[in-house]
Amino acid sequence: MKWSEVGEVNCSVARTLSVVGDRWTLLVLRNAFLGVRRFDDFYASLGVTRHVLASRLARLVEFGIFDKVPYQARPPRFEYRLTEKGRDLYSVISTLAMWGDRWMDEGRGAPLLFKHMNCGKHTHPQLVCSECGERIDPRHMQVEPGPGI
Amino acid sequence: MKWSEVGEVNCSVARTLSVVGDRWTLLVLRNAFLGVRRFDDFYASLGVTRHVLASRLARLVEFGIFDKVPYQARPPRFEYRLTEKGRDLYSVISTLAMWGDRWMDEGRGAPLLFKHMNCGKHTHPQLVCSECGERIDPRHMQVEPGPGI
Repeated sequence: MKWSEVGEVNCSVARTLSVVGDRWTLLVLRNAFLGVRRFDDFYASLGVTRHVLASRLARLVEFGIFDKVPYQARPPRFEYRLTEKGRDLYSVISTLAMWGDRWMDEGRGAPLLFKHMNCGKHTHPQLVCSECGERIDPRHMQVEPGPGI
Repeated sequence: MKWSEVGEVNCSVARTLSVVGDRWTLLVLRNAFLGVRRFDDFYASLGVTRHVLASRLARLVEFGIFDKVPYQARPPRFEYRLTEKGRDLYSVISTLAMWGDRWMDEGRGAPLLFKHMNCGKHTHPQLVCSECGERIDPRHMQVEPGPGI
């Protein structure tokens, strides 16, 4: 199976990875969630080459993850703003961050703390069942063929 | 910044990606959560080369994501079993799957349905605040420097 075909495969994980399964793309998104909007700010914050950054941003616009919005006319300059589809990737980025906080902190604690503005507390977002609200344990999950199989 | 240095970077997302930020690795994990344990079954289910699969599995054992456990003595054969550290990646794999179900299903519905054995219902796992239980909206999250910064 070539990676170019993975988007076709009948698996939602593989399909998602065909869009965001690239480390630079995931770090671009991580920085977008931290408030970065402009090419030069992504460039300064990531240490990626301009060429690679431009290709990842163009791809994210193409897939509808970012809207490319002008913020200045002369010379023309654009911001990259997360769409609803893009914002919905927060769950992926934050679970990557939580896992790193728990397992890769080398005993020093989390580099960043997350604060939930609604309740004002530091939070460790967790995955719960949409139906009963209980915390998800993978050993209590089953899969069945769905309509799109 | 070279990818070999990313594990050193003071960002939990980058650190996590230094371990699992590879598409084949994430698909190996996806299949592990679906119950695959043995080399030949990973091989048959993924369409990856034996060489790439062997390197990804060895790396996941090295990082403590899988335990490599003998299940047969002659000839020696091993199973790859998720450790607690590995099982904790379910949140990453399932949020990738949920995003694909929502945004990449091409109108056909999810290929797989998830059933929560505790409540017996089909579930769409969601991310909630550990403190107030409210569903996480990225626009209501702030970050602050933590102890490991």
